Amino acid sequence: MVVSPLTSFLAVDWGTTNRRVFRIDAGAVAETERDDRGAASVEDFPGEVAAIRGRFGDLPMLLAGMVGSTVGWRTVPYALAPAGIEDLAEKLLWIDDRTAIVPGVACRGDGRADVMRGEEVQLLGAVAAGMVPADAMLAQPGTHCKWATMTGGRIAGFTTAMTGELFALLRRHSLLAATLTTEVELGDAFRGGLAEGARRDLSASLFAIRAASVLGLRGDADAASFASGVLIGADVAARLADSPFDQVHILADPTLGGLYAAAVAAHGREPVVVDSHTAFAEGAIAIGVRVK
Amino acid sequence: MVVSPLTSFLAVDWGTTNRRVFRIDAGAVAETERDDRGAASVEDFPGEVAAIRGRFGDLPMLLAGMVGSTVGWRTVPYALAPAGIEDLAEKLLWIDDRTAIVPGVACRGDGRADVMRGEEVQLLGAVAAGMVPADAMLAQPGTHCKWATMTGGRIAGFTTAMTGELFALLRRHSLLAATLTTEVELGDAFRGGLAEGARRDLSASLFAIRAASVLGLRGDADAASFASGVLIGADVAARLADSPFDQVHILADPTLGGLYAAAVAAHGREPVVVDSHTAFAEGAIAIGVRVK
Repeated sequence: MVVSPLTSFLAVDWGTTNRRVFRIDAGAVAETERDDRGAASVEDFPGEVAAIRGRFGDLPMLLAGMVGSTVGWRTVPYALAPAGIEDLAEKLLWIDDRTAIVPGVACRGDGRADVMRGEEVQLLGAVAAGMVPADAMLAQPGTHCKWATMTGGRIAGFTTAMTGELFALLRRHSLLAATLTTEVELGDAFRGGLAEGARRDLSASLFAIRAASVLGLRGDADAASFASGVLIGADVAARLADSPFDQVHILADPTLGGLYAAAVAAHGREPVVVDSHTAFAEGAIAIGVRVK
Repeated sequence: MVVSPLTSFLAVDWGTTNRRVFRIDAGAVAETERDDRGAASVEDFPGEVAAIRGRFGDLPMLLAGMVGSTVGWRTVPYALAPAGIEDLAEKLLWIDDRTAIVPGVACRGDGRADVMRGEEVQLLGAVAAGMVPADAMLAQPGTHCKWATMTGGRIAGFTTAMTGELFALLRRHSLLAATLTTEVELGDAFRGGLAEGARRDLSASLFAIRAASVLGLRGDADAASFASGVLIGADVAARLADSPFDQVHILADPTLGGLYAAAVAAHGREPVVVDSHTAFAEGAIAIGVRVK
């Protein structure tokens, strides 16, 4: 017996390595907590869900993110873009009569296929709550940065760039590893990297970081910021080349959001940073009221 | 006492992980042998050089490549581009009166710095022997692909792209590792990757490989070829965008040379594959006759 609509429930943004639980009480966030019990590190999903109810209350639950993938509890079929909040509510995979997983979204277009799981709740939540316009360009920076175009409040299409993963690979395993040791800072080195990245010639721009180090032309203290600028700059340049929007709404924490905001501004567009946790909660609430 | 000019000597193309010894007899290659005693795995360079003389003959020696870097025997200052064969001969670093290391070449231009060690001997050897024109565009594919513009027989400038290294990183350590398991083949998947790579949007093109796999749109047997095409396609597209040359001379073994040749042809230029070992030997011979 599904209690519908859901207005008091638990929503979980359950990613690969982390998760965040929100207790929604009468359509508003009453409590939230993050931990590192990501889907990839969990085997007993029924036990985890029972433990969450033990801590946050014995309530219905909506789960989103990689918990619905092959590394998660059940593989939930994707909703196809264009997709709105009602599509997510309709295609919920019910584990039992009070526990459901939200589908991810897949798209095809421009010769490329793409997939997301979890980001769709943030994107549609941001629109549903009026945090962003119904026609907008949204960016979700991270290991795999999502760039979505919203049309009429729905996800019309999106592109994922593995910008954060490439940076991590370069830092850990590449010829540049010994050079990229410091934290990334939003300063002149990062901005110089943005300009280099806008050339959209990653494999040459990255080797040039090594050459500059060998020739003593750039201190290694600046190299990581420059490299981050190159990667983010190439990502932003490619996305904005095709975008008619004057604004880019960035769903991110302040640090990474600030780097992407600087990149967007460097291309003459207006960055608007939006809180991604609030957007997720709003998305879950919007799905909840559509549960039948 | 340097015996000059050198016409009978040993030339070593001594890279990071491999090396190749050539015995030059009266200005021609008499013998050549490759092994895996690269500069990074050697500590006793005098002992190694003595062993090479023990095997190939007690002759003067010219060493080139990473043996002249911080991971090698001595760090030899770079010759600055534009650089010709006479610059390499003049700036030889003599270890003793019959053992010298060839300098690498550094360049600055177009806002980027770049360096090479070892490739300069191939490049200038190819020109000196008439294997390529004195004004030409040359590519040396590999872990770090070098693209050089030759003007009047000299290295006018060059760009290094870490195309091969990026492919190795993706194969070994990335989200795509499980997908990129097969050998790269010159077929439709590779050519499809070339077209995608020409968009010069690496971080999105690479994630799309994952998405296509998740959605079952491309068999994993084709994924490595497609990914290689994306990386080589982006490299070639960036280089040819700025190049006025109708031909590209490719110094490579037949397999990797064939992939780059296909990429060059896809952009409407004529690829000409040149044997890189012959080019190196010709370069060493050309330096030898200039030793004073």
